[in-house]
Amino acid sequence: MKIIFEKPELFYNFDEQAELIEKLLDIGTALSGTQDLSSLLNLILTKSREITWSDAGSVYLLDHSDNTSKLVFKVAQNASLPNLSFKEFAIPLTPRSLAGYVALKTVSLNIPDAYNLPEHEPYQLDRSFDENISYRTRSVLVVPMQNRKGEVIGVLQLINRKVNPDVTITAENALEMTQSYSKWEERILRSLASQAAISIERNHLQESIEHLFEGFVRASVQVIEARDPCTFGHSERVAELAVRLSQEVNTIQSGSLAAISFSDRQLQELRYAALLHDFGKVGVPEAILTKPKKLYPRQLEVIRHRFALAQRTLELETTQTKYQHLLQHSAQKSADATECQFCQSLPELDTKLSESVAKLSRYWKILLEANEPRVLAEDPLKQLRELAQLTYRDLDGEMKPLLTPEEINQLLVERGNLTAEEREIIESHVSYTYGFLKQIPWTNDLKNVPTIAYRHHEKLDGTGYPLGLKSEEIPIQAQIITIADIYDALTAGDRPYKTGLPTVTALKILQQEATKNTINVDCLELFQQRRVYEVLGHSIDVVMELA
Amino acid sequence: MKIIFEKPELFYNFDEQAELIEKLLDIGTALSGTQDLSSLLNLILTKSREITWSDAGSVYLLDHSDNTSKLVFKVAQNASLPNLSFKEFAIPLTPRSLAGYVALKTVSLNIPDAYNLPEHEPYQLDRSFDENISYRTRSVLVVPMQNRKGEVIGVLQLINRKVNPDVTITAENALEMTQSYSKWEERILRSLASQAAISIERNHLQESIEHLFEGFVRASVQVIEARDPCTFGHSERVAELAVRLSQEVNTIQSGSLAAISFSDRQLQELRYAALLHDFGKVGVPEAILTKPKKLYPRQLEVIRHRFALAQRTLELETTQTKYQHLLQHSAQKSADATECQFCQSLPELDTKLSESVAKLSRYWKILLEANEPRVLAEDPLKQLRELAQLTYRDLDGEMKPLLTPEEINQLLVERGNLTAEEREIIESHVSYTYGFLKQIPWTNDLKNVPTIAYRHHEKLDGTGYPLGLKSEEIPIQAQIITIADIYDALTAGDRPYKTGLPTVTALKILQQEATKNTINVDCLELFQQRRVYEVLGHSIDVVMELA
Repeated sequence: MKIIFEKPELFYNFDEQAELIEKLLDIGTALSGTQDLSSLLNLILTKSREITWSDAGSVYLLDHSDNTSKLVFKVAQNASLPNLSFKEFAIPLTPRSLAGYVALKTVSLNIPDAYNLPEHEPYQLDRSFDENISYRTRSVLVVPMQNRKGEVIGVLQLINRKVNPDVTITAENALEMTQSYSKWEERILRSLASQAAISIERNHLQESIEHLFEGFVRASVQVIEARDPCTFGHSERVAELAVRLSQEVNTIQSGSLAAISFSDRQLQELRYAALLHDFGKVGVPEAILTKPKKLYPRQLEVIRHRFALAQRTLELETTQTKYQHLLQHSAQKSADATECQFCQSLPELDTKLSESVAKLSRYWKILLEANEPRVLAEDPLKQLRELAQLTYRDLDGEMKPLLTPEEINQLLVERGNLTAEEREIIESHVSYTYGFLKQIPWTNDLKNVPTIAYRHHEKLDGTGYPLGLKSEEIPIQAQIITIADIYDALTAGDRPYKTGLPTVTALKILQQEATKNTINVDCLELFQQRRVYEVLGHSIDVVMELA
Repeated sequence: MKIIFEKPELFYNFDEQAELIEKLLDIGTALSGTQDLSSLLNLILTKSREITWSDAGSVYLLDHSDNTSKLVFKVAQNASLPNLSFKEFAIPLTPRSLAGYVALKTVSLNIPDAYNLPEHEPYQLDRSFDENISYRTRSVLVVPMQNRKGEVIGVLQLINRKVNPDVTITAENALEMTQSYSKWEERILRSLASQAAISIERNHLQESIEHLFEGFVRASVQVIEARDPCTFGHSERVAELAVRLSQEVNTIQSGSLAAISFSDRQLQELRYAALLHDFGKVGVPEAILTKPKKLYPRQLEVIRHRFALAQRTLELETTQTKYQHLLQHSAQKSADATECQFCQSLPELDTKLSESVAKLSRYWKILLEANEPRVLAEDPLKQLRELAQLTYRDLDGEMKPLLTPEEINQLLVERGNLTAEEREIIESHVSYTYGFLKQIPWTNDLKNVPTIAYRHHEKLDGTGYPLGLKSEEIPIQAQIITIADIYDALTAGDRPYKTGLPTVTALKILQQEATKNTINVDCLELFQQRRVYEVLGHSIDVVMELA
């Protein structure tokens, strides 16, 4: 199985040749499949060194940002000095460095001895590097990394082509143990470098699009949240809390959470579900989102005018009655008003009017009181029911209710400030979110985003909405988001009339929920124990005393 | 430069060997750089055939959709029958076909003669293909295309390894002019097929993310537009019109538009700018977006109550005056009411009240009239100014204006139904859009989306908003979107009180704008001439008469 080449530098037999070609194909495969830049650069350098038996090497990338072109020294490897530390840095792009020359001229440099460079060339080797690490750079192969348009995007530099792959190079043995790179190696390397360049650009493009998607999602969530100042930043915080809690779940080795482990992709899916869980609020009118009391402000103004009209009508009616009395009195021509029955009833009429006006004013105060978004006591409830019976005479002479059934309904809200209908509209945001998310063509990795987001108001005991699902029907990701969502709503204050509660109170309320079996008790315990809420920078002192 | 291998199948000299390796690297480079699936599959098949001197070949991809696994016959090539037509089709995934066997077993098949298959194997060749095209399939190499996880995603099949690359294979010469594939070729092909598989998956991933981004953008635009039923679908339509118009601009060879040519990427950028040009409307309250008349509905209700209160107060005051008169009359004890000065003035008081009430009622009608969102004539304007002077006595005894300055301001709007302040809030959507778009990390291809969208309400003569830029400062893309935007606003009716105009009228209004030098006259001409508006399915008959 020996092969005899006329070129002395190539002594591959059949299997070796097949192996080399397969190795090159594998590099291509690996380059196509590698996702992050750093791994990609390390891979290309490692493989290039392996094929060429190079002791050391480095990769530079061109950086055109800030209006000046630089070469950024991204990766360095040295087999003979494995403990060498390396930190990324930039050098100016000039033809005075080997890499700079290659980048500017789009040529390869195949240098037998870097300490013996042709004098007419601009490039030089900075020997101080070697001196610092007691090394001797001898043969060097520098090739440009060109993209599909032929533009140079970086430079691949290999150092010290060893005579056999297992030798360690020192300053002393470098001349003996290294040799020049062949034309062959130069040709292969140049192809390989350009293949790497295309992979880098492609990686970069993919990252840019992912980054663009992420940025667009976050920006849209922000503008939609901006409609309701009370919940601004809520979605981002819920996403942070939910991801943090999921990461803690990953560390659990026993109990109900032991079997659960989220991959990076699943965490990403959960994060998007959390970020977008309230997106449907764009479908809830601002008037409801930002409604400050039980009645809308202009509604209260209409009622105030109606009260005024009622009062003025009472005054008119009393004056008309008095006028009628007086007319009758005049007609009877009785001599003395004191003897007149009608005249004697006049003070009574005035008293009755005063009482009626005072009553209106009292009910107005009750109404203002009931309009506040707090829990109604039994007393005002009774008075509101009386108020619902009051009528006034309108301009058309008809008796009309002082408050419409709709207004009474609003004032009778026993908790918060939303009527059942308004609450339903707010709760419909979950279905609206789902409808929105379902029409989006999620990638396979993110395909559960709609379902997870859809379940964030379900409760383990089946009392949640919109579907009233029970524990086993609610994905654990949704259970995690639920805890994050409630915690943030409590601590940030999610309604116009609410202020945020301290962490300790919020946790107490969550514990009550867990006791009622509405939320996942194990996740809540983890949330407390690992102080997940600290990702939001909330105070922890109060929590200590709780524990 | 001759090389002698012991294996008879390999007769590569140095240059040939280098060439082969470079070819393989080039394939890798090409695979990394190719963007669409069809090109990628054709590329892998062409290059594989080239390297192996194969006369024909095909590529199958596995399709797991619809719960059944199929092999989709994606690409076929035959050098000896170049005019063969091919249409994609699916075959069931069974081990009875060569490709099915390879896909199911994850092995290669290297078959010397497909008409002479081992009898114990399940696979068979369907000779009807050959019979239909008078061909003879002899040697076949079938290799699986495996992704990074080793899963088979497709199959590469090469047919008839020729003895020299230039021969044409016929049913007659196939036995003489073809030979078996070598182990060598099998090894290389398998690597190459897997490299292609990774590129395909990567392409697919990138397309999925782009698709996801596109889908998310469109869905968000839709939910935001849903807040204002009048403009639903507007952004999609403007995008369609603008892209169509830009494509027409590309065809123009003379005049001011000759120098302009949009690449596919620029069209994409323009499309996103058009889709998102009104995104900032999410920052405009629904109350303003959907305001039906000059006064908000509840505002009108307050005013109606105030008019009622004013009338009742007038009635009260008249009755009080009459009562006072009567008291004085009674006190004077004059014998006859007809002789009494006070009693004689009573009918006059009633007449005055009737007049005042009639006046209120007249002004109420004027107010209702003025409340409609149409252009105000001089007459109602005068009456509105009188109305602004009216006062009534409130419950507290103070004289107050019947209409607040704010209400008068709203009613005095001369065109449409928005006050200057409200118009400003609506116009601020442009800046809001820009603020939103600017924070998004656009890819390089889309970096002008924010600026293009920001300029869509500028006018060539500098009378637009928000910056009042002039023609040379407004990108041509924005000028194109402006025409699309105005056209759609006119034909769809962009305010709650407006109905859509017919195409012919909209074009007339656009022509008036062009005459005033506010919009690009050449683009408008193209818009008309090429009937760009037909992309929306609008009628064209009316346009004919215009021309």
